[in-house]
Amino acid sequence: MQFLLELVGILTNYVRKTFDRSTKVLDFHHPHQLLEGMEGFNLELSDQPESLEQILVDCRDTLKYGVRTGHPRFFNQLSTGLDIIGLAGEWLTSTANTNMFTYEIAPVFVLMEQLTLKKMREMIGWPSGEGDGIFSPGGAISNMYSVMIARYKYFPEVKTKGMSAAPRLVLFTSEHSHYSIKKAGAALGFGSENVVLLSTDERGRVIPADLEAKILDVKQKGYHPLFVNATAGSTVYGAFDPINEIADIYGAWGGGLLMSRKHRHKFSGVERANSVTWNPHKMMGVPLQCSAILVREKGILAGCNSMCAGYLFQPDKQYDVSYDTGDKAIQCGRHVDIFKFWLMWKAKGTIGFEQHIDKCLDLSQYLYDKIRNRQGYEMVFQGVPQHTNVCFWYIPPSLRGLEHNSEEYREKLHKVAPKIKAMMMESGTTMVGYQPQGQKVNFFRMVVSNPAALQSDIDFLIDEIERLGHDL
Amino acid sequence: MQFLLELVGILTNYVRKTFDRSTKVLDFHHPHQLLEGMEGFNLELSDQPESLEQILVDCRDTLKYGVRTGHPRFFNQLSTGLDIIGLAGEWLTSTANTNMFTYEIAPVFVLMEQLTLKKMREMIGWPSGEGDGIFSPGGAISNMYSVMIARYKYFPEVKTKGMSAAPRLVLFTSEHSHYSIKKAGAALGFGSENVVLLSTDERGRVIPADLEAKILDVKQKGYHPLFVNATAGSTVYGAFDPINEIADIYGAWGGGLLMSRKHRHKFSGVERANSVTWNPHKMMGVPLQCSAILVREKGILAGCNSMCAGYLFQPDKQYDVSYDTGDKAIQCGRHVDIFKFWLMWKAKGTIGFEQHIDKCLDLSQYLYDKIRNRQGYEMVFQGVPQHTNVCFWYIPPSLRGLEHNSEEYREKLHKVAPKIKAMMMESGTTMVGYQPQGQKVNFFRMVVSNPAALQSDIDFLIDEIERLGHDL
Repeated sequence: MQFLLELVGILTNYVRKTFDRSTKVLDFHHPHQLLEGMEGFNLELSDQPESLEQILVDCRDTLKYGVRTGHPRFFNQLSTGLDIIGLAGEWLTSTANTNMFTYEIAPVFVLMEQLTLKKMREMIGWPSGEGDGIFSPGGAISNMYSVMIARYKYFPEVKTKGMSAAPRLVLFTSEHSHYSIKKAGAALGFGSENVVLLSTDERGRVIPADLEAKILDVKQKGYHPLFVNATAGSTVYGAFDPINEIADIYGAWGGGLLMSRKHRHKFSGVERANSVTWNPHKMMGVPLQCSAILVREKGILAGCNSMCAGYLFQPDKQYDVSYDTGDKAIQCGRHVDIFKFWLMWKAKGTIGFEQHIDKCLDLSQYLYDKIRNRQGYEMVFQGVPQHTNVCFWYIPPSLRGLEHNSEEYREKLHKVAPKIKAMMMESGTTMVGYQPQGQKVNFFRMVVSNPAALQSDIDFLIDEIERLGHDL
Repeated sequence: MQFLLELVGILTNYVRKTFDRSTKVLDFHHPHQLLEGMEGFNLELSDQPESLEQILVDCRDTLKYGVRTGHPRFFNQLSTGLDIIGLAGEWLTSTANTNMFTYEIAPVFVLMEQLTLKKMREMIGWPSGEGDGIFSPGGAISNMYSVMIARYKYFPEVKTKGMSAAPRLVLFTSEHSHYSIKKAGAALGFGSENVVLLSTDERGRVIPADLEAKILDVKQKGYHPLFVNATAGSTVYGAFDPINEIADIYGAWGGGLLMSRKHRHKFSGVERANSVTWNPHKMMGVPLQCSAILVREKGILAGCNSMCAGYLFQPDKQYDVSYDTGDKAIQCGRHVDIFKFWLMWKAKGTIGFEQHIDKCLDLSQYLYDKIRNRQGYEMVFQGVPQHTNVCFWYIPPSLRGLEHNSEEYREKLHKVAPKIKAMMMESGTTMVGYQPQGQKVNFFRMVVSNPAALQSDIDFLIDEIERLGHDL
């Protein structure tokens, strides 16, 4: 126990420093450097035990060479921030160290999950008392559930007979959507070629007419259009597809906006979806992993996935076994992901999440306003961002005179973001993502989900990009 | 931070009490009782925030009405125990709150995973330097990987074209194997009917001749036998299939025995497998979730699962991007499951895990020796258990005179284990699993994986079964 308390000292010190802007976001080293053993930090495992003192040193080193994802200037991922209540929730969860598959060994957590999912379904706008859902290890798995449920709904015999019991099934998703839909298509036996990518407008939103045309095309070929995915907050642009024009849906990175009275109109039509993926571990700042798949139809999750294992789901238990969730899952053992979320919800209230989300969107707006007419910046698309994603190029002075359509300009610009990012990581001051998209060369994608971020951190990011990129 | 320290006080107090045998394993309540709000414990979420004091009360209540899976007398699941180093590892992991998908944001954890997987492959006996692997959210997902990899190896075009690009594919697994193989068959588009169950001997081990006959049968029908699963430590009996007679394999609950010089002979032939599932969160006492899928062939995991998402796996990063693990996974975001395991391995050394495993098997042997000739007990199968699973019926005095083959006896005996279990949970003194298996009526399945369990806890379990069951 003394050991545990000493570790807590290390951890609370780490947390304190993470929120201190004079602390670096990371202390970068290459893999070979870490593998060679930095200052005695030996990653190799051995036959003999280490002393507890050494274990504490290992813990310190692990944190030292890691990345502070909770730092106010870490903008690299959709999941950022370090919520103290969420952290407390995780600590309690790992202390309880139980498994979501039965009420028997997780009575409180199972009920928390049930109540929270119910609340989330209400926010989607489905009729109260209906529907179901489950927390999964991440958005990609939630999306996999979503595709499985659609398949089970229209071709239930695939569960027992395999894909040969159905006609050729086709899934539709935005060319800007997350790659997990394609992964699900490949894993579940549809084949990635049967995931049809939909064209988008300049803002990255699916063009409904293109969906219509492609569904028609698929039908004419004699295939069966099974599933249409609408993205609410795309990964790179943060685009919201026009849900009302689309049938099925998953939610992904934007789910949290359902909690904001100001922004939930972007979800208009979501109540018409059959299933929704909502990742509280992104926009809402819940520690990883926390993702839910919500379905409109009661019973379909269990219908789709149940195998009725006798050793776990005994029908002759003394309690109401409808509370055992395990047979709804594609997993057996299932980590408790609900508690930290439930606890944060208790501590913030719905209005606390709303404030958090509105604040993040305000910060994005601040960034957008600041750079859209600033010298040396070009926006990837015009107009106010729909989500906190702000996509832009930084153009160093040496490139500003060049013809924008020339190959030379494109080639040079493509190298700017990676170079700035590499220098950023070397100096450890901040982190932001970049990527190409279609014909567009590498650009920065700024996202805000960290409640600790302030306008001054946005200013800092701009200054840092200019400092590092000025002479490129 | 004060809040976090107060929570730590609650948690350390909980841990201390968990190891105190005078503490109850659980304080059972039915779902409706908890939902009505026990002594003010309100599970409902609301719009307004709660005070931090109330949050601490919620945390205390959450633990109070939960189940102490680390209690020395909790034998209900394959995953039991509360390892303090493992717990410390989880606390650090959640404080670091990062994501395994790129070296960029999880440099240390990515390297730890790589080194640990390498070590695990060496223990399997694969040629050093080859192979690959990944930690997944649980054994069921690891098994899903295993099936996907086999499919990709022999029918890589399924990834793009779907199941219709392959002949009818058949999977083989023991009738005693875990239900996740069937779930994988259903999810991945094979269909559960194409998962052929293999007959077992009286100890629950696959009969190789039956496998041979069934493969022949499948071939004669014109189908393609793709995948044979051997179980090393089956869920209920703890049986080890004869691996040397079988091709592919997954490991499941028994994986830890690879670390024991005394018991690893049960894995004889495992080095001939193409993939192995190994769940450190079971026998080895690592906190949930911690499961690895190990594959013999380098590159096949990425080949099977990659979709090359440009926004995450940029090829123009400044470091060696072969360290980015994300595209090997079916997930996108992936929780850090490695650190607690790595830290436990550091703290125990390989020999520490060996001692833990040998001790658990000794305790099972102790239980077996104690009850096999004891009045009122009948073993489900004869002979020393291969794993820590001890399967037995307790026969109350009222049943002892009855003809064992009579329907009346079977019906009455079927109800004994559930009744004792319900009383156990009401009194909260201990927990052990039960289930029927095939034609066999409900029996107890005792498993030992908790390092805190002693012979006196085994004695206690026996006394408790007799105390509660004597008058049935």
